[in-house]
Amino acid sequence: MSAHPALTAASDAALAAYRDAVSRYTREQLRAVEMVGADGTDTMFVDVVVEDAVISAATKAGVNVLTEERGFVDIGSAVTLVVDPVDGSANAAAGVPLSCFSATVAVDGEFTESITTWLHTGLVWWASRTESTFRTSGCTDLASAAVSVLRPHERNWDAWSRVAREAKRIRILSCSTLDAAFVATGAVDAFLDAGSDTHRLMDIAAAVVLVGASGGVVVDAYDRPIEFDTDLTRRWSGIVAATPELAASLQEKVAG
Amino acid sequence: MSAHPALTAASDAALAAYRDAVSRYTREQLRAVEMVGADGTDTMFVDVVVEDAVISAATKAGVNVLTEERGFVDIGSAVTLVVDPVDGSANAAAGVPLSCFSATVAVDGEFTESITTWLHTGLVWWASRTESTFRTSGCTDLASAAVSVLRPHERNWDAWSRVAREAKRIRILSCSTLDAAFVATGAVDAFLDAGSDTHRLMDIAAAVVLVGASGGVVVDAYDRPIEFDTDLTRRWSGIVAATPELAASLQEKVAG
Repeated sequence: MSAHPALTAASDAALAAYRDAVSRYTREQLRAVEMVGADGTDTMFVDVVVEDAVISAATKAGVNVLTEERGFVDIGSAVTLVVDPVDGSANAAAGVPLSCFSATVAVDGEFTESITTWLHTGLVWWASRTESTFRTSGCTDLASAAVSVLRPHERNWDAWSRVAREAKRIRILSCSTLDAAFVATGAVDAFLDAGSDTHRLMDIAAAVVLVGASGGVVVDAYDRPIEFDTDLTRRWSGIVAATPELAASLQEKVAG
Repeated sequence: MSAHPALTAASDAALAAYRDAVSRYTREQLRAVEMVGADGTDTMFVDVVVEDAVISAATKAGVNVLTEERGFVDIGSAVTLVVDPVDGSANAAAGVPLSCFSATVAVDGEFTESITTWLHTGLVWWASRTESTFRTSGCTDLASAAVSVLRPHERNWDAWSRVAREAKRIRILSCSTLDAAFVATGAVDAFLDAGSDTHRLMDIAAAVVLVGASGGVVVDAYDRPIEFDTDLTRRWSGIVAATPELAASLQEKVAG
């Protein structure tokens, strides 16, 4: 099986637009807040320019697009790309080279394949629901796990601390889709939002396909279904883990 | 001014040896513990092969080498390279692409220039004590600072938490020399070991030159001098900050 042409076209467009933006604009320009996105969060200039390029490429390829800033661009296709043009945009705008383009194909609401493209290196992780060249670590035990976590907030400080104290090693890379790619390849054992409900669909949809096809699982800390939805106000606390056992341990730690 | 030839030769040798090792060995082989290093910590296979290449290149270029694994290789030169062959070796061995070669030139015990080479991209940050093309962010206020931190341990959990709760944003990248390079370029405002005394000289020597010449400062959390020493049992809690004011705020937070 090979990648959906709209997925490849969108990834290529994102990479080109990102690199062009970085070469032409200062950090201050890249991180200037342009608008409040469809998901209710601030949108930076770098998000807007990459998203515009992605929407143009994807709709030209005949598919709908669901993005954090513009919302649902419906051109009447059965296929929708769920897109995060620049995941880790705080990294990107500051000059920390950890941010990704990420897109997931949904056909009649079912996720079928996804791509994650590291914007600073051009490295790509692609998988379909049934096909991945990657394999998770197989780790089942939190005490021996290397875990990536979203940064803590006051509202989830206790849950975050329980995870951080129990895991063997923790990292905070601030780029959910890159974190998930590292779980798929076995470089880290798990990645999670420890109960802060920060994740939007585009932060974890690619992981559902990529990590699921690589032997791992993606669940919500509170067992809410992670599903296609054009309502961008929904939030999750995604847990991306090498095994169901490790995911269950992390759910328990978040619950307290 | 241009880079000391031994510095360039060592960096080139490290990059070549690292890439060769990654292409030839599995992750299990790369992370196998080979020996207890001169600094008293475990040494992985990937450290050993890169270090061997660096020592060979540097001594051929006529300088001494001080490394974490082999200790002080003294060939009678006034010049010593203080080397971390693979900083972030846990990242490197796991497949998280955040690790660097780092070396600092010490002439009669004074640091004069340093290089940090991101092994996964080949990106290089070089500076001399008086010359840098980089500039820190100039941030003076912890509450508005993006801060990278070494991962917490039980022994410094409280100090670590004070820093994490006060800073605007935290990251844990697990590669001190890369973290320091990001402070030099202004991508992050500060990087620190929040009082766990994990830093060895080779973890922070390059930052003393690079960040110092870029407008920032490097201090120890407990004000111990960061100085050339062939005693590799010494430890520091390095604070690498965009400004002296920000470094002082971080010292206060670590002290409690």
